[in-house]
Amino acid sequence: MNAPGPATTVTPPEQVFDWLDAEADRRAEAGLVRRLRPRGPEARELDLAGNDYLGLARDKRVAGAAAAAALRWGAGSTGSRLVTGSTELHAELEHQLARFCGTQAALVFSSGFTANLGAVTTLSGAESAIVTDKYIHASLIEGCRLSRADVAAVAHRDPAAVAHALATRRKRRALVVTDSVFSVDGDLAPLGELSRVCREHGAALLVDDAHGLGVLGAGGRGAVHEAGLSGEPDVVTTITLSKSLGAQGGAVLGPRRVIKHLVDTARSFIFDTGLAPASAAAALTALGVLRDEPELPGRVLGTARALAERLGAAGFTVSSPDGAVVSVHAPGPDEAVAWAARCAEHGVRVGCFRPPSVPDGVSRLRLTARADLAESDVDRAVQVITDAAPPGAR
Amino acid sequence: MNAPGPATTVTPPEQVFDWLDAEADRRAEAGLVRRLRPRGPEARELDLAGNDYLGLARDKRVAGAAAAAALRWGAGSTGSRLVTGSTELHAELEHQLARFCGTQAALVFSSGFTANLGAVTTLSGAESAIVTDKYIHASLIEGCRLSRADVAAVAHRDPAAVAHALATRRKRRALVVTDSVFSVDGDLAPLGELSRVCREHGAALLVDDAHGLGVLGAGGRGAVHEAGLSGEPDVVTTITLSKSLGAQGGAVLGPRRVIKHLVDTARSFIFDTGLAPASAAAALTALGVLRDEPELPGRVLGTARALAERLGAAGFTVSSPDGAVVSVHAPGPDEAVAWAARCAEHGVRVGCFRPPSVPDGVSRLRLTARADLAESDVDRAVQVITDAAPPGAR
Ligand SMILES: Cc1ncc(COP(=O)(O)O)c(C=O)c1O
Ligand SMILES: Cc1ncc(COP(=O)(O)O)c(C=O)c1O
Repeated sequence: MNAPGPATTVTPPEQVFDWLDAEADRRAEAGLVRRLRPRGPEARELDLAGNDYLGLARDKRVAGAAAAAALRWGAGSTGSRLVTGSTELHAELEHQLARFCGTQAALVFSSGFTANLGAVTTLSGAESAIVTDKYIHASLIEGCRLSRADVAAVAHRDPAAVAHALATRRKRRALVVTDSVFSVDGDLAPLGELSRVCREHGAALLVDDAHGLGVLGAGGRGAVHEAGLSGEPDVVTTITLSKSLGAQGGAVLGPRRVIKHLVDTARSFIFDTGLAPASAAAALTALGVLRDEPELPGRVLGTARALAERLGAAGFTVSSPDGAVVSVHAPGPDEAVAWAARCAEHGVRVGCFRPPSVPDGVSRLRLTARADLAESDVDRAVQVITDAAPPGAR
Repeated sequence: MNAPGPATTVTPPEQVFDWLDAEADRRAEAGLVRRLRPRGPEARELDLAGNDYLGLARDKRVAGAAAAAALRWGAGSTGSRLVTGSTELHAELEHQLARFCGTQAALVFSSGFTANLGAVTTLSGAESAIVTDKYIHASLIEGCRLSRADVAAVAHRDPAAVAHALATRRKRRALVVTDSVFSVDGDLAPLGELSRVCREHGAALLVDDAHGLGVLGAGGRGAVHEAGLSGEPDVVTTITLSKSLGAQGGAVLGPRRVIKHLVDTARSFIFDTGLAPASAAAALTALGVLRDEPELPGRVLGTARALAERLGAAGFTVSSPDGAVVSVHAPGPDEAVAWAARCAEHGVRVGCFRPPSVPDGVSRLRLTARADLAESDVDRAVQVITDAAPPGAR
């Protein structure tokens, strides 16, 4: 029992947040302090850190569509999608996303994060079991925590572990949740096997294809499409508009009844302002570019493979380049930060992932390929990363 | 124990989501089905439903800034704020928000929803008690659910109930959470009294000023500023960029150490793509307009009062117009939907709030005032709402 003492010992206002300083000290000791480094409008560095896989965020057609939409529709959507926040742009984007990915319907959220919250919470509930890969994205984890379901997080990429958890669940209803491409290492979930396991156990499958859309599948239709699952009655996909589509926002794709259920019950949809028209228009235009230029995804994959091969050959521990993401192990968080900083000094921006952003506690450089990178960019990146490597990195 | 039966009774894929149809039927019976009604670019109706209180979403300066930013910075921010998603625009917006509202620092999120998740979860935790007004916004409630804290939701606008919950808490640390202007009825939290109660009990105060910014306080600096609390060391404010500022996004404002703590630990910040540059630029420009035109908030309040007085005089049960929001009680959810639909037929768009979007189960029309409404707009709105009223509405 920690009841506060008598009035004289009550924490004074200026000390109420002292505990934050204590926590900050602990993080500083562990090398886990973050600093925001605002960038300018001009790309001064070679960017291997962003998720703009197709290079569409700054594409003239895409940025131009965003600009035109702001002028035509206004800077904001002015309300919840259920009140004034649904425009014809949102409806068209939903129609085109569903068509492109091969699902009955789609629903656009203000972010991939809130799309995941909405999908997980409304497709499970207190009557449901959830079985997840233990390395799923944080937004899916938050959805699980909000869901009131029985949640089991099982071994990474392990359909047998999923099957076991499903077979021993205490609830009749079940939802299996996974990323398609895991965000840290870029490795792939065994979607086909997971779907088979789901069907053997009467479970639904929810796949976060945030890093698959625009990179994997025919013409970039994503990993769920590639696995032949996108139109299935027991599969739901979430995506983000903020990576390959170069904009902001997220969406849930799936059977029509799932989408209707989300409209009526997803709290992160109902109680959130609709996506800004500029972002909706940008994503819509990016989707059109992807449809017109189906060779873009192959270029991303080729670049990712080249990066991984060359860094592996140089002796680093490199993840398998199944998507656009390639990670390189660092000896520790401080070394990872210093390594990334040295790369930046030499004009190459790479991501630096440390606890708690890495599920297994291993600090890493995280590199992302882009469709618009040249061979000379890859050469330069490999050279700089190699020269900047800390002792113990290979 | 509801373990699934033998393989032959496993739910087939096309029936896995049958439970959604059963739930949809229940909602249909209760009159709780939602339909999205996408609107066109031209405002055909008199809009009393959006939250664009200052009429800035379509302001040429604001929409123009969004357009220019999309062209200059790209359609999306391309990554987490911790990786590539922080631009100088985000930093400038944070600087100006803190300056305007009188706090040490600010942090911009991709929505007000995710800002609330971040603030509540990181300022509480398993070591903490949370005491909330029972009518707080859904995004704050989700934050509480994610927090692992002991959560007590007490009577609406009741500092004595908050004091009691604080006095009887089992954790030493405590966070009191409230909306400033409650989103359904537009009524105000007693912020001064809540702050006193917090200090008597060594608790921090977190205020969601989503509907206060741009409407209340000197020059629209919000309800927290009006209560003299914005620079206090034990007070944190969240806002949204999607209402008075006409854009999209959210922010947390408060002591510098709170903001640093959020950068390092808020999962809805770390694991989410940064706000689109167009939205950041729009909010920044809207803030400038508000600074240059400090008379705008007074106009909103005047219109809200006129609406409330006239509808009250016509015999309806109307909320007190303390902010921009005025609600009118409806006899039931079906009647509320029909009422709002009839208003729309006659060219007046009003919000319709039903369970589960209303904390007390009372269905309502929800009207919002705007700085750019004329007296003749108010006349017309009152006329249409009165003519369209269902039996039992007065
Ligand atoms: C796998 C995954 N899912 C969801 C998200 C969230 O999407 P957004 O950033 O659009 O909110 C991200 C990244 O941010 C992600 O990597
Ligand atoms: C009180 C309150 N807080 C937070 C939010 C969420 O803000 P946003 O819509 O920008 O996500 C809203 C409305 O949507 C609100 O009314």
